[in-house]
Amino acid sequence: MNSMFPNKRIQSMIGKKVHIEMKGEKSVLEGILRSVDDYLNLHMSAVNELQDGERKRLLGSVVVRGNNVVLINPMKE
Amino acid sequence: MNSMFPNKRIQSMIGKKVHIEMKGEKSVLEGILRSVDDYLNLHMSAVNELQDGERKRLLGSVVVRGNNVVLINPMKE
Amino acid sequence: MNSMFPNKRIQSMIGKKVHIEMKGEKSVLEGILRSVDDYLNLHMSAVNELQDGERKRLLGSVVVRGNNVVLINPMKE
Amino acid sequence: MNSMFPNKRIQSMIGKKVHIEMKGEKSVLEGILRSVDDYLNLHMSAVNELQDGERKRLLGSVVVRGNNVVLINPMKE
Amino acid sequence: MNSMFPNKRIQSMIGKKVHIEMKGEKSVLEGILRSVDDYLNLHMSAVNELQDGERKRLLGSVVVRGNNVVLINPMKE
Amino acid sequence: MNSMFPNKRIQSMIGKKVHIEMKGEKSVLEGILRSVDDYLNLHMSAVNELQDGERKRLLGSVVVRGNNVVLINPMKE
Repeated sequence: MNSMFPNKRIQSMIGKKVHIEMKGEKSVLEGILRSVDDYLNLHMSAVNELQDGERKRLLGSVVVRGNNVVLINPMKE
Repeated sequence: MNSMFPNKRIQSMIGKKVHIEMKGEKSVLEGILRSVDDYLNLHMSAVNELQDGERKRLLGSVVVRGNNVVLINPMKE
Repeated sequence: MNSMFPNKRIQSMIGKKVHIEMKGEKSVLEGILRSVDDYLNLHMSAVNELQDGERKRLLGSVVVRGNNVVLINPMKE
Repeated sequence: MNSMFPNKRIQSMIGKKVHIEMKGEKSVLEGILRSVDDYLNLHMSAVNELQDGERKRLLGSVVVRGNNVVLINPMKE
Repeated sequence: MNSMFPNKRIQSMIGKKVHIEMKGEKSVLEGILRSVDDYLNLHMSAVNELQDGERKRLLGSVVVRGNNVVLINPMKE
Repeated sequence: MNSMFPNKRIQSMIGKKVHIEMKGEKSVLEGILRSVDDYLNLHMSAVNELQDGERKRLLGSVVVRGNNVVLINPMKE
């Protein structure tokens, strides 16, 4: 059973594609996780904003504030 | 009377199915709790997203940010 | 005049029925307060979810994240 | 000029009637401030819930979580 | 270039009129900034609540919880 | 691969135009980043508020509370 702590689980996703659900207007993002800190602030690249499951806009490099992240989900490659 | 502290109560659910209510768009999740940290960040597996009480989508492995968790409820097995 | 500090006031409700208003979808809960920690995370039992003042669903044992609690109100018995 | 720090300003309202705007469903409360801690958690008594400026319901004794308080306003007596 | 740290920038507004955008129902306030603490809790006086850019109601003396402040903007005098 | 920590990544944007998504009513801002602290509070200048991708209003100098920032995106120049 994979029972890594939440922060270790996220660190294991660095360099990989992740799916992020957030609070606020721009609520779903997909991109490559570059780094994460203790507050779960995320540095991502090649980020796309999604709407209704469709790519809506390329944001490129993005920093996401950890407290506004609802969930992080690794993407299949 | 079971009067475990909130964090101990959640730790007692590790390895079991839990029901999670959250803030944000994807508000109800069910899955197996893998680990939890001091901020109540959760690492879960076999996670399903629910809508109106029905399974809507399989998310698989998910990390949930603790401050966006509204409540955690152990599921009957 | 009862001028207990907020955390002491909540501790005085342990073992008793409380009414909880929360942020998020499942916004009103009633149940027995089992324990509370420094963040006002709550461990409750025999919890009912309310909608428009009516009991909607029995949740049983629940842990509530303190930052998503709006207010706590002791219930008359 | 009254330039008390925010926490001192609130402590100066203890024992007096205050008007509270909050996040969440039950957004406006009026009552007597009994105590306040460093997080601006509030212990209030004789609390009324307001809707559209009218008293809607007597809540009595209430603890309010500080992070969900938007603003605190002393009431004229 | 004015590159004061965010907290110093706000301290430089003490005694002046500021425009505040907040989360919650009463979302726009204007008034004189009296003091600010490390959490960006604000003590303001002569506060007006705005709706659709118009003065709606005089609130007078107000304490605003920092985490619910979205932005602070000095007003031209 | 650019894998700067989230706070370093934001510091690398100081003096440059950034696009900010926030919680609350005034949800999209663009302007020059002047400084940032450990909480990701931002001091910005020449800030425009956007609505539906169009400039709606010039805000000028603004301090943004970090916890209400959803994402920060450097703008192409």
